[in-house]
This record gives sequence, structure tokens and C-alpha cells, in this order.
Amino acid sequence: MNIHVIGIGLIGGSMVLDIKEIYPDATIYGIDNNEAHLEEAIALGVVDKASTFDDLVTADFVIVSVPVDVALTVLPKVLDVIGESTIVFEVGSTKKPICEAVANHPRRRNFIATHPIAGTEFSGPSAAIKGLFKGKTNIICEVEKTTFKLQEKALQLFTAIGMRIRYMDPISHDKHIAYVSHLSHISSFMLGKTVINKEKDEQDIFDMAGSGFESTVRLAKSSPAMWTPIFKQNKKQVIETLEEYISNLTQFKDLLVADDYNAIYEEMESVNKIKEILNGITIKK
Amino acid sequence: MNIHVIGIGLIGGSMVLDIKEIYPDATIYGIDNNEAHLEEAIALGVVDKASTFDDLVTADFVIVSVPVDVALTVLPKVLDVIGESTIVFEVGSTKKPICEAVANHPRRRNFIATHPIAGTEFSGPSAAIKGLFKGKTNIICEVEKTTFKLQEKALQLFTAIGMRIRYMDPISHDKHIAYVSHLSHISSFMLGKTVINKEKDEQDIFDMAGSGFESTVRLAKSSPAMWTPIFKQNKKQVIETLEEYISNLTQFKDLLVADDYNAIYEEMESVNKIKEILNGITIKK
Repeated sequence: MNIHVIGIGLIGGSMVLDIKEIYPDATIYGIDNNEAHLEEAIALGVVDKASTFDDLVTADFVIVSVPVDVALTVLPKVLDVIGESTIVFEVGSTKKPICEAVANHPRRRNFIATHPIAGTEFSGPSAAIKGLFKGKTNIICEVEKTTFKLQEKALQLFTAIGMRIRYMDPISHDKHIAYVSHLSHISSFMLGKTVINKEKDEQDIFDMAGSGFESTVRLAKSSPAMWTPIFKQNKKQVIETLEEYISNLTQFKDLLVADDYNAIYEEMESVNKIKEILNGITIKK
Repeated sequence: MNIHVIGIGLIGGSMVLDIKEIYPDATIYGIDNNEAHLEEAIALGVVDKASTFDDLVTADFVIVSVPVDVALTVLPKVLDVIGESTIVFEVGSTKKPICEAVANHPRRRNFIATHPIAGTEFSGPSAAIKGLFKGKTNIICEVEKTTFKLQEKALQLFTAIGMRIRYMDPISHDKHIAYVSHLSHISSFMLGKTVINKEKDEQDIFDMAGSGFESTVRLAKSSPAMWTPIFKQNKKQVIETLEEYISNLTQFKDLLVADDYNAIYEEMESVNKIKEILNGITIKK
């Protein structure tokens, strides 16, 4: 089995680590614009050897795991050169623009649009870890546009690395993911900014920040190169979530200004049900 | 050694678990308004037996770990009845109102104002865990107002359970903690609210929420009974942090509206330094 991964970072790298474990005979080829990343990935054993677009004609799978703006131009080029029975999938956090970019490509049926909901705040080949996808959800969009036989092969691979599959149209995907992922990243980045700006003497943050702050601000370590194009592509939805978030924060502030502590108590109590929702997530893991 | 803990939840309960481990001969007495909590704490072995305010005259240590509004009335009553060499300390997340409440008490010198920066999102006696304070910071306010000998005994106890000590005046404490703790809680509660309100079908949250959302929203599981009086007592500072947070979020949204992705990239990149700050926290742990 020939697997090519284009963009060897957290997601692509972790995916091929799992694939190699399950299919030890597979050869993992890597393509990366960043020469240093490619060398690092080979040195770390994340990929076996470097390849080029010319080699994709014999690929069984091509995993495109690049920032979503790069995906828009890379994906059509990949589809141009693959073989008849190559399956191409892409793993970014937006789905509508990606699906549109290949909608009319003659090889559209060799492509399957996915979003594996997994990750950490780290990036680059050294961020690749085994088992990242175990028990996680893989959202597949427009599955009907992929050849049945290739759908089946891709699903087999996703199931083998431990993922649960869920089907969704690209517009719904982008709308929901803005709430449960994109907004979390912005809330975390801006929390980090607010605290850093205030506490010029970083020692004060060191000493007073507990695990609560650490957890809430964790996503502010994420890669700007990955996240800027996500916010750009999902601009409309992200702005909507931000407006609602800002409005909820402002309302909370107004309750505080008005000394309405009963309402503040009730606000928090009603959000407490997130416990059960999160338990649901954990149980499914 | 006689230790009395008033309010047997996450903080008080965890503290006496550690104390019992270090001083196996200590007897741990519990006082709690909530009869069920008291029984649960005894059943769990968190405290040895129930006590009353009349027993405090023979106490070595009295730990007051109740919501901060309750502390304002309980603390003076405790000081009224303790013995000459009893040390009383309180562990809440605001320090100025607490210090003011006992400022003129004839037994002020038996009191030491502390804020152990440790916790989880859980509450009640079953939330008590061993080792919660290991490597964490304990902020002590107005240390000079405590009898030297009792300071020494208290510090010995805090050091024995693994805490680093830092001294701060109550006003600075309340100002800094608003940024690194109180704001994180509100940002998390309002993130939870925004997502719950939008995603009426909770199954969608289950399936699409990853570890990023889980981490960012974790604090929204916290107890409203504990947090409402904290926000009330630190109202002015909390409103200030909220205004700055809302302003940063609005500015980010405006950059998105204006399609200024270079500025968005730079915003995130400059907040990325939170990595080193958080590494500092982790290393110190």
C-alpha cells in the first residue's frame, strides 16, 4: 500500500503513524514545502521517504493535511495527477470552500472530504503522535460524491484507526464547527491577550495562574498559520459566533453592574448542564 | 493536633486529607451547615468527627473554606470563640473584603489570610483529593497582621503540604486574580452558554466537540454558589477585566469584518508567547 501525505504536521503525521502501525507493509511517502519539516519527519520515522507530485499516480491514498488556504490550490493539482483508483482526502477545519474548490474537477469522485475532530495545540512533524484519532469523530461531507468503492476503502481506513464516522453537509459542518471549535480558539487567544496586556510583569502570571487559567488559555498556543485561513474561510459563521459570545459576555457584565446576583447565579447554573454534555463526549471516547 | 474545617468541600476537604497524611495523629473535626455533606465527609474519611463552634477553643488550626460571602460572617464568629493559640485561616478567592471583615477584631492576630491557588471544577466532600496543593502557590495577604509565632506554624503547615508561598497585599491580589482566574471562569461560562443556546440538539455538540472545546469550557462546570459571591465581592475588578476582554474580542471581530488577515495572524502570533508563560507554570509545578 502506498500512502502519500502532503503537509506532515500534527494531523497528517499522526494519521500516518497510526496507518503504519495497522498496515506495517505500507510505504509512507511525504511531501512538504518545508524542506526541514520533511527531513525531520523522515528522521522521526513519521514518513519513510520523500516523494513528488509525479509519484502520486501510483498512490493508494493521498492525505492532504495543509492549512486550508493551501488546500484550495493543492487539492485540484493532486486530483490532476493521481491514478484511477487513488483516494484523496483532506482533513481541514472548513468544508464548504474545500468542497467548492473541487466541485467540478473531473476526478471529484476520487476525493472524500473529511474533518477528523482531533488535535492538540502543537504543530509540525514532532507534534505527530500515535493514537490521536482513537474514539474521535470523523465528519465526512458530500459522501455521495465519492465513488462507492473508494468511499468504502477510506471508511475502512478511518475505522481501522479508531474513528467514529458522521455524515454532514459542508454548510452545516462549517456552521456547527464555528461554535464548538473556531469560537473556542478565539476566546482562548483573546483571554491570553487580555491577561498578557495587563500583567506586564509576567512573573505575576506565573505565580497566580492555576490550572483553570491554563486549561482555558491552552488553545492560544495554536498555530496562526493554520488558524488564520480557517477564520478567513469561515468568516461569516465565525463573526456570528463572536457576536453572540460578545453579547452574552456584555449581558453578564451588565448583570454585575446592576448587582443582579440572582440572575448571575441562574446564568451559571443553567450553563452547568455542560457537565452532562461533556460527560457524553468523554464516555464516547 | 486538633484541626477543625468549616465547610468541607473541594478545598477544605483536600487540605485536611493532606494534613492527615502528614500528621497521622491529628484529629480532623468538621463543621458544615449541610448535614448531608458532613455525614458524607465522615463516611469518606475526609474528617474524623463532627464538631461545633464551642469546640473551637481547643483547636490548633481552624480552616474556613466556605463561599466568600459566608466567610464574611463566619470568620468573626470563629475568632470570637477560639483559644489563645488557635490559628484561623480562610482560603477564598477574594482577599480585600475578607481582610476588612476582621480588620478590627480583637483576635485579628490569630488570623492569616490565604489563597491557595488550586482546585478543580468539582465541589462537595467527594471532590476532596490528596495532593491537590503540591507545587501550587499559596498567596498570603497582610502577613504582618498575624502573630509571628502563628505565622510560623501556618507556614510550616502550608510548606508541609507542598505549597510555595507568595506575599501580596489584598488589593493587588484581588486585581491580579480577576485576570488569571475570575475572567477565565466567566469566559468559560459564556462560551458554554453561547454553544448551548445555538446547538439545541445537544447530539451535535457531542459529536463535533473535541478536546479543545472541552478544555476551554471546563470551568463552566464550576459551582454557582461558590462563584456568585466571588464576582460580587470583586465586582469592580471583574467588570474591568470583562470590559478589556470584550474590547479585545470586538477588535478581533472587526479585523475579520475588514478582512485584515495579516493583523489577525499577528494578533495570534503575539499571544503565542503564552506558551513560554505556561511552560513556566508547569515547570514550577
